[in-house]
Amino acid sequence: MTLQIQPVILCGGAGTRLWPESRGDRAKQFLPLTGADSLFQQTVARTPAGEHFLPPVILCGDGHVATVRDQMGAHEARLLVEPMPRNTAAAIALAVAQADADTLLLVMPSDHVIADVPAFHAAIAKAARLAQADWLVTFGITPERPDTGFGYIASGAPIGEDGFAVDRFVEKPPLETAEAMLAAGGYNWNAGIFLFRAGRMRDAMLTHCRAIFEAADKAAAAGMRDGDALYADALLFETAPSDSIDYAVMEKDDRVAVVPVAMGWSDLGSWQAVHALAACDEADNATVGDVFLHDSLGNLIRAGGKRVSVVGMEGVAVIVDGDDILVMPLKRCQDVRAAAKARE
Amino acid sequence: MTLQIQPVILCGGAGTRLWPESRGDRAKQFLPLTGADSLFQQTVARTPAGEHFLPPVILCGDGHVATVRDQMGAHEARLLVEPMPRNTAAAIALAVAQADADTLLLVMPSDHVIADVPAFHAAIAKAARLAQADWLVTFGITPERPDTGFGYIASGAPIGEDGFAVDRFVEKPPLETAEAMLAAGGYNWNAGIFLFRAGRMRDAMLTHCRAIFEAADKAAAAGMRDGDALYADALLFETAPSDSIDYAVMEKDDRVAVVPVAMGWSDLGSWQAVHALAACDEADNATVGDVFLHDSLGNLIRAGGKRVSVVGMEGVAVIVDGDDILVMPLKRCQDVRAAAKARE
Repeated sequence: MTLQIQPVILCGGAGTRLWPESRGDRAKQFLPLTGADSLFQQTVARTPAGEHFLPPVILCGDGHVATVRDQMGAHEARLLVEPMPRNTAAAIALAVAQADADTLLLVMPSDHVIADVPAFHAAIAKAARLAQADWLVTFGITPERPDTGFGYIASGAPIGEDGFAVDRFVEKPPLETAEAMLAAGGYNWNAGIFLFRAGRMRDAMLTHCRAIFEAADKAAAAGMRDGDALYADALLFETAPSDSIDYAVMEKDDRVAVVPVAMGWSDLGSWQAVHALAACDEADNATVGDVFLHDSLGNLIRAGGKRVSVVGMEGVAVIVDGDDILVMPLKRCQDVRAAAKARE
Repeated sequence: MTLQIQPVILCGGAGTRLWPESRGDRAKQFLPLTGADSLFQQTVARTPAGEHFLPPVILCGDGHVATVRDQMGAHEARLLVEPMPRNTAAAIALAVAQADADTLLLVMPSDHVIADVPAFHAAIAKAARLAQADWLVTFGITPERPDTGFGYIASGAPIGEDGFAVDRFVEKPPLETAEAMLAAGGYNWNAGIFLFRAGRMRDAMLTHCRAIFEAADKAAAAGMRDGDALYADALLFETAPSDSIDYAVMEKDDRVAVVPVAMGWSDLGSWQAVHALAACDEADNATVGDVFLHDSLGNLIRAGGKRVSVVGMEGVAVIVDGDDILVMPLKRCQDVRAAAKARE
């Protein structure tokens, strides 16, 4: 890479899939789920400012500004503050509106894990070449199982050695379809990581979702600066239609490329995924904190400052956070929303 | 009944089968496991001082005196304080040594549940008649299942309408033996409830376990009085061999009677037993405190001041006490000792 790439980190989410640890202002991306650093800190560290990358632009909500600054520490960053959530298209439009046309923007969620950073960097190098040729580039994760929780990307014709034209996007499929795609090959998971030239995305947005781009552009122009942060104007940003970048742009544009990559990626989208990535003992138990286990297999126990004793259990999550204690089978952990909804 | 009977309530236990709620100075008998009152308070209330019963004698350890007084409230009682645990024979010997020879003593554990108190009182009336004829009387609980956790009592010849001579005591049996006894009939569970004339038990002890009786007798005589309490002398009481009343006397004497009774008895010897007795919702879940349940069956959840959320679980105990959280299948709850041992 000769060009420096501008990382754009999306921190707007506040999911409840990892309730009770993830909730309210304590969103998943700010939690230390796989080690000492939070997922956000790991995301920042993956594209360090220097030879290849500019200091990051962080897109976040009002309630997360303090946490972002705290977790950035001494590292340089610019914050673009969304006054209210308007989904990924409007968030990315804020970053695009504030960038020079020829800057390459690398858009990344802040709550994923990537184990193989060199593989990621190699994929970025390929994607950057495609982006300079005005492709909107998405990264396709080599699928490891017929997961029904992700969208899939079908590769079309190859573009040199760097990637493929996207044939089509497939929404979260039923299991049979997922199995068929895995067997057929040429399908990758859509991880929501993108690389493009800012001016190219601006043009695409003006074509495919003009209302979103114009609302974000005006909201940024009328925004308030506070040191390293630009607070988008609330009245203007509020008028942006809420849509994902996939629906608003990627699925509509006819010059979209995919760079397939196997890089130990996980979206940590459930306690089961956290367990799968965690360091486990010989009985496949992953524990954090003061945990006593007896005759138990394949559990995820996070003691949250309390003392958890587990006897004769298999495949369950016990998650303690403050006064909240969650107990459920890891296999059922998509249903955590039921508890989160009742409790929050 | 024309004679007033002297209840003797054994509070010396400090079991860990209901850990973490039961531990250290907070023994099972002082916990409100089946309602607002503790098991000890329920035991006291079952034989109220008045026409039929004298105020109770409470046998307890040093560490439980304050709790006993607190839970007795304004009710009259005498406390016999064991300086150290020496099992039930020595405890009962203290009460026998302090009683007039013709007093009928009704010895009861303090940590059982009896749902049908009129049935209990009817059995006491029968047992009192047998005790006045110098039988050592034990109460035999009509067995409801081939439980391997209890000793059994085999009935011999009937003694009028009131009971049976005991043929033999059967130790906690293997399952096949328990099933055979249930099928054969004439076997009852040994609940550790006894009724006898004090002088008769004194004589039996002098015959079968003289060292225990003499140590207790001397320890009581040399004890310190403090209001309603007599603290047995520690140096003397310590010399008493530690043995159960069953081994030390009942199994050796040749004039032991059993009064069979069905009275909704439970020893609440496990969290599973607590669940079995608790009021449950239509999905067989029993909860105490702030509990959210979703798609869950047959669980026992005691929130202990915290907020417990349970999703998709079946047949487990979640017991919260202070900073301790126990999670285990109800079927495995005999194994709670493993956790209690590791934690205490």
